[in-house]
Amino acid sequence: MEESRLQKQLRFLVEVDQMKNILRRTLLVDKSRRENDAEHSWHFALMAMILSEYADLSRVDLSRVLRMALVHDLIEVYAGDTFAYDKKGNEDKEERERKAADELFGILPEDQGRELRTLWEEFDAMETPDAQYAASIDRLQPLINNYMTQGHTWHIGVVTSKDVYARAAIIEKAAPELWKVVEFIIEDSIQKGWLKP
Amino acid sequence: MEESRLQKQLRFLVEVDQMKNILRRTLLVDKSRRENDAEHSWHFALMAMILSEYADLSRVDLSRVLRMALVHDLIEVYAGDTFAYDKKGNEDKEERERKAADELFGILPEDQGRELRTLWEEFDAMETPDAQYAASIDRLQPLINNYMTQGHTWHIGVVTSKDVYARAAIIEKAAPELWKVVEFIIEDSIQKGWLKP
Repeated sequence: MEESRLQKQLRFLVEVDQMKNILRRTLLVDKSRRENDAEHSWHFALMAMILSEYADLSRVDLSRVLRMALVHDLIEVYAGDTFAYDKKGNEDKEERERKAADELFGILPEDQGRELRTLWEEFDAMETPDAQYAASIDRLQPLINNYMTQGHTWHIGVVTSKDVYARAAIIEKAAPELWKVVEFIIEDSIQKGWLKP
Repeated sequence: MEESRLQKQLRFLVEVDQMKNILRRTLLVDKSRRENDAEHSWHFALMAMILSEYADLSRVDLSRVLRMALVHDLIEVYAGDTFAYDKKGNEDKEERERKAADELFGILPEDQGRELRTLWEEFDAMETPDAQYAASIDRLQPLINNYMTQGHTWHIGVVTSKDVYARAAIIEKAAPELWKVVEFIIEDSIQKGWLKP
């Protein structure tokens, strides 16, 4: 018997439960353990909502940003998490993620799979106002958790302040008020010896 | 020095990191451990998005439902999670949660704290179309995870199918198509011996 539209949606929603097992480098604020993709996606969405006044709301649609936040990491269920500062892991990231997207979004009814994929690709390209604000918050959330945990993920690799500034650069463009937070965190972390200058 | 608007917002966003440590009774689909509030809130929001076609979209605003999903459990950071079928724990739930709301939403700038509190109260009252669809998905998500884990949380207490039907009743009203899923899960779980008739 052919799978119904609702059955496909439910199978997809069960499959993505695995987001709760995809670990990121970031620690929880209490340092008890590493954060996972589901937790990060929730925190990112809530942060986008609470800080929306710092986006250009004449061009940014918060509702679309929230949907981007909820789906932006889904493909990691199959592709795994690639650490932002892992140069080698980022070499084949695009192909791994494209394959994962085919597989995962392919579970959904075709129209809906296409819709989610388009949303994820828009987020990833960082070209539209919605995607630029979303990308800003996607970067701000781990930056804050990193600061609250004495720069935990910066110690793992050989991350310098230059890398962190480069990774966060979109924030200066999409939410200038929040750029002050980025500057404070980076400069204070250098002062405190948590981050290489 | 008085805390700025942005500082209050950031303090709030750091405080709610604790959502990642508030454990629910529900297990992950792979049964490896219990789910936490941040993971549940993300899964609930994504599920509300994917299944929105089964809501009455002439009356339901998905964007508000997503915001409700993101904030609906925040007060548990101070009040803790109360198991849905714990009669004793539910006796003083309202007062514990009201106190927690005062404290938590009080961290935010006043206008924003009021906005979040109103959204949470609307969700909790289950009277508006947005709140009724949101409450439906809030109940459907653990029901599905429970079914995928052979009725794990139903074994803990003395939960019967009558309790589960009563808890899920809002789904019949707010998303009738999804009620069929509820009926299937409950009846099949009884058949399989995972749930008392």
